[in-house]
This record gives sequence, C-alpha cells and structure tokens, in this order.
Amino acid sequence: MQELKGIGASAGIAIAKAYRLEEPDLTVEKKNISDSEAEVSRFEDAITRSKDELEKIKEHALKELGQDKADIFSAHLLVLSDPELLNPIKEKISSESVNAEFALKETASMFVSMFESMDNEYMKERAADIRDVTKRVTGHLLGVEIPNPSLISEEVIIVAEDLTPSDTAQLNREFVKGFTTDIGGRTSHSAIMARSLEIPAVVGTKTATGTIQNGVTVIVDGINGDVIIDPSADTVKKYEEKHSAYMAQKAEWAKLVNEPTVSKDGHHVELAANIGTPDDVKGVLENGGEAVGLYRTEFLYMGREQLPTEDEQFDAYKAVLERMEGKSVVVRTLDIGGDKELPYLELPKEMNPFLGYRAIRLCLDEQEIFRTQLRALLRASTYGNLKIMFPMIATVNEFREAKAILLEEKEKLVQAGQVVSEDIEVGMMVEIPSTAVIADQFAKEVDFFSIGTNDLIQYTMAADRMNERVAYLYQPYNPAILRLITLVIEAAHKEGKWVGMCGEMAGDEIAIPILLGLGLDEFSMSATSILPARTQISKLSKKEAESFKEKILSMSTTEEVVAFVKETFNS
Amino acid sequence: MQELKGIGASAGIAIAKAYRLEEPDLTVEKKNISDSEAEVSRFEDAITRSKDELEKIKEHALKELGQDKADIFSAHLLVLSDPELLNPIKEKISSESVNAEFALKETASMFVSMFESMDNEYMKERAADIRDVTKRVTGHLLGVEIPNPSLISEEVIIVAEDLTPSDTAQLNREFVKGFTTDIGGRTSHSAIMARSLEIPAVVGTKTATGTIQNGVTVIVDGINGDVIIDPSADTVKKYEEKHSAYMAQKAEWAKLVNEPTVSKDGHHVELAANIGTPDDVKGVLENGGEAVGLYRTEFLYMGREQLPTEDEQFDAYKAVLERMEGKSVVVRTLDIGGDKELPYLELPKEMNPFLGYRAIRLCLDEQEIFRTQLRALLRASTYGNLKIMFPMIATVNEFREAKAILLEEKEKLVQAGQVVSEDIEVGMMVEIPSTAVIADQFAKEVDFFSIGTNDLIQYTMAADRMNERVAYLYQPYNPAILRLITLVIEAAHKEGKWVGMCGEMAGDEIAIPILLGLGLDEFSMSATSILPARTQISKLSKKEAESFKEKILSMSTTEEVVAFVKETFNS
Repeated sequence: MQELKGIGASAGIAIAKAYRLEEPDLTVEKKNISDSEAEVSRFEDAITRSKDELEKIKEHALKELGQDKADIFSAHLLVLSDPELLNPIKEKISSESVNAEFALKETASMFVSMFESMDNEYMKERAADIRDVTKRVTGHLLGVEIPNPSLISEEVIIVAEDLTPSDTAQLNREFVKGFTTDIGGRTSHSAIMARSLEIPAVVGTKTATGTIQNGVTVIVDGINGDVIIDPSADTVKKYEEKHSAYMAQKAEWAKLVNEPTVSKDGHHVELAANIGTPDDVKGVLENGGEAVGLYRTEFLYMGREQLPTEDEQFDAYKAVLERMEGKSVVVRTLDIGGDKELPYLELPKEMNPFLGYRAIRLCLDEQEIFRTQLRALLRASTYGNLKIMFPMIATVNEFREAKAILLEEKEKLVQAGQVVSEDIEVGMMVEIPSTAVIADQFAKEVDFFSIGTNDLIQYTMAADRMNERVAYLYQPYNPAILRLITLVIEAAHKEGKWVGMCGEMAGDEIAIPILLGLGLDEFSMSATSILPARTQISKLSKKEAESFKEKILSMSTTEEVVAFVKETFNS
Repeated sequence: MQELKGIGASAGIAIAKAYRLEEPDLTVEKKNISDSEAEVSRFEDAITRSKDELEKIKEHALKELGQDKADIFSAHLLVLSDPELLNPIKEKISSESVNAEFALKETASMFVSMFESMDNEYMKERAADIRDVTKRVTGHLLGVEIPNPSLISEEVIIVAEDLTPSDTAQLNREFVKGFTTDIGGRTSHSAIMARSLEIPAVVGTKTATGTIQNGVTVIVDGINGDVIIDPSADTVKKYEEKHSAYMAQKAEWAKLVNEPTVSKDGHHVELAANIGTPDDVKGVLENGGEAVGLYRTEFLYMGREQLPTEDEQFDAYKAVLERMEGKSVVVRTLDIGGDKELPYLELPKEMNPFLGYRAIRLCLDEQEIFRTQLRALLRASTYGNLKIMFPMIATVNEFREAKAILLEEKEKLVQAGQVVSEDIEVGMMVEIPSTAVIADQFAKEVDFFSIGTNDLIQYTMAADRMNERVAYLYQPYNPAILRLITLVIEAAHKEGKWVGMCGEMAGDEIAIPILLGLGLDEFSMSATSILPARTQISKLSKKEAESFKEKILSMSTTEEVVAFVKETFNS
C-alpha cells in the first residue's frame, strides 16, 4: 500500500484497477528519401486516415458527451484541412527530400512554439490542437497506434501524465470510474472535464505514472486529493464507507432537486447557474437550477474564424430559453477583450488588459458587433424568460447608452414586424467599484443588478487573482467587499429591484450565510454547486444571518470575518 | 505671418528669433578597412574625446541645472565605459574588417532595438541614452560637430524636431526664451523639462522645423499652444500684452508666496508639493509650498546598477528635511514594481502590472530592502519634520505589518544608541478602493491619510489612464470617486486625523472647490501649481463650498458635476 498526495479536482471516491494511458513512442528520425512525390502522397494518406478517425471520435463525443466536446474534434479537423500548415510540410518534404514524419514534426513544432509564445489564450489552445493532431498523424505515419480510451470496456481508474482534450472527450463514464494525473491543477483542462463528467479525480500527483502499475487496485479520493495504491482490505473498507457517506450526501442533495431554495425560517432565494453554451442547460436542470443567472455569450465568439452571424446567435439564445422552459435566463452581452481575445478582432496589445478596452467599452465602440447580438437576443426573447445585462459598466452614461442602443434595435425590429417580448428586464453587472459606490444612482435606471465578484474583488483590492504573488489579496470576505455588496443590495431594494451574484463567491460555503444575511436575492454558481448550496441554505435562518450583518460589516479584516462565520454558522 | 498649432507644454509667452537646432548629418557608410588595429584605436580615441566632452557638459549642467540633469550625463558616461557595448564593437571592427562608424552603428542599433522592445521604462531610457551617445561618438569619428546649445549667447526660440536629454540639459535660461518642436506631448521629456525650467514651449507642432527659418521672429504661446512665425507688428503687440497679463497674473500669485493658504472665510488648508529628489526642494520653497506632501523615493532607486545603501538614502532624506526647515515632509516608502521596474531587482513579468506585485506588497516580501529604507528614514528623522506613509495598502493587516516593521527597526536603532524623533507620524496612501471603503477601520490605526487619486481613480473605474482607448473613464469628478474621498475625510476627521491628497486632482481648478467643501486638509501638487491654487482658494468660501457637498455627492455623472462646479464657482 502506498499513498500519493495530489489536488482533489473532482469530488467523490473511486476504487478500481489502474489503466495506464501511456504515451505511444512517437520518436521521429530524420531520413533522406529519394521519391519525394511518393512521400508527399504517403503524408496525404496519413492525413486522410487521421481525418476519418477524427470524424468517428467526433461522432462518439457528440453522442456521449455533447456538442462542446465534439467541437474539440471539429477544431482538430480544421487543423488537418489548413493549407497554411499542410503546404509548408509538403514543400519541406519536396525541397529537402526528408521523410514526412520529420517534415511534420519540424513544421508543427515551429507553429506550436509560435502560437504558445503569443500572450493569447486562444492561440495557446490552437497550439494544443496542433500538438494533439500532430501526434495522431505521426502515429499513422509510423504505424503506431494512438491510445483510444473509448475502447475501455471494464471499470478502471485512468493513470496518465496528463489527459489531452481528445483523451477526455473519449472517456466513457460507464467504465472510467476515476482518474489521476502527474500534472495539472484545479483549473486545468482535465480537472474541469472531470467535474463536468462527475468522475472523481486527483491531479498534480507528480508521480502517478512513475508509481502505479497497470492492473493494480487504486483508490482515488477526489475529496481530499489522495491516491492510494494497492490498498489493504481495511483501507478499501474505509474508503467504501467514505464513498457511501459521500453518495448519501449527494442523495440528500438530490432530494432537493425539484425543491425551491428556502431557508429554515421560510425565506426564499433563487439558486441559478452560470452557463457558457446551450448544452450546459442539461446540467443546470439535473442539478435543480431555478434559473440561468449568467449566460456567458463569449463562447459563441470563440474558436472560430469570424464573428458569429445574427442567426447563429439567435439559434443559441433560443435553444437556451426553450430548454429552460420559462425559467429566467440572464444573458450577459459580449465580454471580450482583456484576457479574452478573438483572432478576427484586432484588439490592441495592452499593458494592463484587465483595466483596458473590453466588454461594454468595446461594444459601445464597435457598435455593429453589439447591435447584431442585441437583435439576436430580441428575436429570441419570445421563446422564454429573457433578461439582458451589460458587463463592465463603469459610469451611468455607459448604461444609458447601452440601453438606448438596445431600445433602438427593439424599435427597429418591431417596426419591421418582428414580435419581441415586452417583458425583457435590462440590468447590469456590478464588477467595477465605481458602480457599487453609486449603486443608488444606477438603481434608478436598471431592472436588476448582478454582482460579478471575481472582477469586483480584483479591482477593489487592486490585485490580479491570476498573479500568484498577489493572489492573497483576492479576499471575498474582506469587509470592504462585503460593504460594497451591501451598498448594492440596499440601493436596489430601496428602488424595488433585485440583486443577483454570479461570481464564484455566490456558491461559497463561507459566503452563503453572509450573503443571505445581507439580503442577496439570487445566487448564481456552477451547476454542481447548486444542491450543496440549497442544502446549506435550508439549514440557515435568514433572521439569524441578518442579525449579524452590522457586526460583520464593522470588522476590519478578512480573518476576523472568516473566524466569526466559521464559529457562528459552523460552515 | 504664419501660424502653427501645437500642444502648450509650458505656460507663458516668448518672442525672439528662431534658432534651429539641426540634426547633423551623421550618415555612415560601410567601408572595408585593412588595418583593423588602427581602426580600433581610432574608435577608442573617439570614445575618449566623447567622454571628455561629456564631462564638461556634465559640469555645466551641474552648475546651471542641478544634480538631476547632471545625472543624465553620468548615465551617458557609464554607457561609454560599458564593455558589454564596447567589446562587441571592437570585435566587429577586427573580425569583419569594417570601419568603426559602421561597427558602432550596427552594434548600437541592435542594443537600442533590443532595449526598446522590452516593456520596461528603465530599459527604454537606456535605449535613449545609447542613441544619444552613439550620435556623439559618430560625430567625433566623422569629424562632424554635434550641436551644442550651451554655446547660444543671444535671446532665441529654439526650433527642433525634438530635444534630447543632452540638448535640454544644456539650455541656458538666460538666452533660451522658449522652444517649439515637431513631436512630443504634454508628458514628453522636453515638455517636462520646459515646465521645470519655466520656459514657454509648444510641442507636437508636426511642422515647426519644416516651416521656420533660422533668424525669423517667432512667438511661442505656451498657454494656448500657438506658434506664430514672422508676426506682424500688431500681432507682436497683442502678444506682448498677453505676456504682460500673464506676468501680472504670475506676480499676483507671487504675492502669496509667503502667505498661508486661507479661504475667503478664513479657513486654512495646507498647500504642499510633490517632489522626487532633494533638488526639487528649491522649487517648492520658491513657489511657496507649505510642506512636502509626497516625496517619491523611487528616484533614489532608479538609474543605478544596485540598491542604494542606507547611507545614500539617509543623505537624501536628511537633505530634504533640512532644506524644508522644519516644514512637514511626507515620505512615501518605495513604490516600485508595476510599471516602475529596477534592473537589479528581478521582478516577474506580469499580465496586469497595475494589479500586481509592487510597492508595499513587494516591501513586505523583500523585507531587507524595506528595512534599509526605514532605518535611513528613522536616522534622518531628527533633521526635520518627518512623516512616513506606505503606498498601495489594501488591507488593515498590511498596514499593521508595515508599521510593526517600522517600530521594530526604530526599537533596534534606539537600543543601539541612535537618536530618533519621537514625533514621526505614520500614515498611508489611500489609492486602492478597499481602503477608502473601510477608511473608518484604517482611521483608528493611522496618523493620517494621503489620497493618491491617480491610482484610486484607475482602480475604482477599472481603467488604465495610460490606455488611450479607456482614458475617457479616468474621471476625477465621477461621483463615485468623490464619495470615496468623502468617506476617507469623514472617517479620518471622526478619529481626529488629517487627510491629504497627492494625486494630480489636488491641483486641479475644478476639483479644488469640491475638495475644499469636502474638508480636505492638505493639497499636494506640483510646485508650479501651488500659487495659482492658493490664489483660487483665497477667493473661495469654505462654507459655501461645503453647502454644495450633499448636492454634488448625489449626482450621477461626471458631466453633471463639472457643469455644476463651472457654473457655481466660475472655475
């Protein structure tokens, strides 16, 4: 028996035999070839076979895992049809009389390092795509089989250095009970996938592949981040009990799937989910989401070659509204720029992108992009309960301008005979400190607020939470943050408006009792947090939480607040 | 008569004959040389002569313009002693058998473009130094004379494409009445120099050198940004009157040099100056500054190869305190990082430096740097009226920790027999929104606040003011900013503490009546703004300003505030 410590990336306990997902040996040597024409056609043949294979994997992913995951392979197929990549390889084969494997490797690594060196998430993902695709084509050229996790047909724990997007997209939940990797953190691709598939996972163990033999029994404890190799019978028993307890807790949560969210003393709040695509709605409903509190529309614009058309957008918005069956859907208009760039929009390179040209600032400037989105939303509005909010509003004038544009587009559509809902609420994100400080002024003009704590905290503390050296200043419970939230809630309620929160704080165990006491109306979080939050709220008294409001707001440090909440609410 | 429009970079009117500061022809051709040893020694000779010349210019600058300007030439002399630059040039001459001019040009431009591509102000300045020095050495190699503005011996208006640091450092105020350039903006080097020398200047005319002939009469109107070439007698008369009016206004201001700053209804506020070096104290006293409200200690750390020693710092702090003759001196501890980097501190490259590892964050981490500065300050404290403040405080714990370190160092010094002032006030900058929001908590622990509006506005509005696309969001009069300032002032006064402001807003004509009404105690600004501000305040009633406080704070936009202030106070 041996134990590894890693990062719990997806909660739950899994016990099964290890299945090592090994990297195939794709070592490539440089060879001189005499018939370069034949070599080019060998290369083209490998491309064709790779494409066929990808089409099959894509179909499988679409059926088992949804559109999102299938899109990964559409991106791979695009790479394999890109003459900008293929032509230089063929030319290299011909002009240098080298083997296809070598020409592919050299050319692809040039593109990969070029894309990776760009300070741009989108291009970095393209680099990962090229690396993934290169492996597949090289496998075909060398006659080496690329591991195909979709073939697994018995219960296993996958052990790998890391999981690529193609690996994870092929995982079958029926057989893959859990996984553990050498590298990665809580926000790495494989961790996100594990949570979305609800497979227990421990990432970042550093040595899993170096330690775990194929076929040995492994326990993955995604709650605590432990991996136990070849456990004793007692240990297995202990973890089976832990698994049962966890499943019981999940079952307790599950009981509340169709229940409203009500505190012990009968106060109702709304638990909503943050989504990125229409496919996410399934998870929202399965987890008992009462609404979509934040539909991030950026994904519609990403991973493409040009702007989405109005009709493409209309389809997506309509799908979400219909699938939510009349439940409220808060759509945030485009929040691009900053760290989220688009290849077809030439955005300026900025010294401080978080303090730069993004979201509503860009939309008020590039109005055609904005108006197209608004038209698509307005046209979709009759298919459900649509609410629209603008991101990164800093001044009252910006809100007025954005709303005026929305009304203009609505008027034009109505004039053209289009039916548009008359009940669309128009609100804004509160994520810039200035808006919280004068929330009373904004409250007169908006229908609702949604507090975006991720950004609000960053700006209020002047600390980029992605920057490790100052991440300690990302303090959701800092009294300054809690006071700003209070200002917003009080200002809104005074005008009869409601306030939601769509940052990570809304689903946080320590924050929930505080926010309940401050009077927050809607909590929007990742779908999998909804049931635990509903369970927690059902055990809290709104009145009691409220009674601590003044005390908490007059504290001076985060540490005081956390200690008090832990002691008082046993969080 | 012809007129050019530019940017008024330094107020005042000057009328004199044009003196074109022409770029010498330093075209370099590549030549093959046979005796590379002789060529290397010709290069070394040019270096020696350049150094001699620079020593002379440096002496002149020191005498006429002060240490700061002389330091520019120390930097140039350093470049000419740097084997990292010189050796590659000599090697190039020898290994490629090329002429020295060519080897210099090629090598220098490589360094220049390397340094310029770094996103680092310090390295960019080094690039400018190398460019400047290369010109001088090339001149010596080609036997072409480099213009020497220090030789000017009659009253002139200098006309140039731009002015280099060596040009400006050689300007003699007695003869150089004004200048105008093709390029540059209000914050370019030449503009800053003009203001510091109090020479009227218009920069960014685009075509001054293309239009103005040597010897023609030119009027430079630095108030409106106009340049009039070959003016008619009437025009000259008109501008002479404008000059007289401006001088009369300056004289009115000057009357208040030794007066306290008192409003019409007898309320006293303190007008202080922001400084960067001990040499700046002269300007503070000449302009009637009642205190130093912000001594930026960064300059001590910049333009050097290693950290300043405790003694070097002690000397500087002592000099400022002594020269201020008992008047209050607020020293801000090191605010480095962000956009201000030091070559000898390896700071991480950050995605959002303004939200990153800087100022107190770095000082609490790199404590030896911080403690050295604090010891130097404590030792200097007996030479005047020292107050210490910490920059970029975000949390109460940071302030407590910084203050505890100060007290520890003080205790150690006292134990070692050092005499230390017992009356050092310890305060903090309020430039991060969180500190303004819970200013009541901080007010219990600090002796004073100094509101750093430049950063406070940036963070509160989430807009980098250096970023042109979002500069419109840098809104000092936004009601959100005014409310945060009010929170700070009210919280401080409740605890009997005073509040200063050291951002640009403190010297702003529109802001002054508002800030007076909000109860600000100390206004710290650039020295040249003090007398106009004192004059303005002497005409304002504190009571009247106060009576508009509630009205202004309940406005919703910047535009409303500005319109109201302009109408009410005739600003």
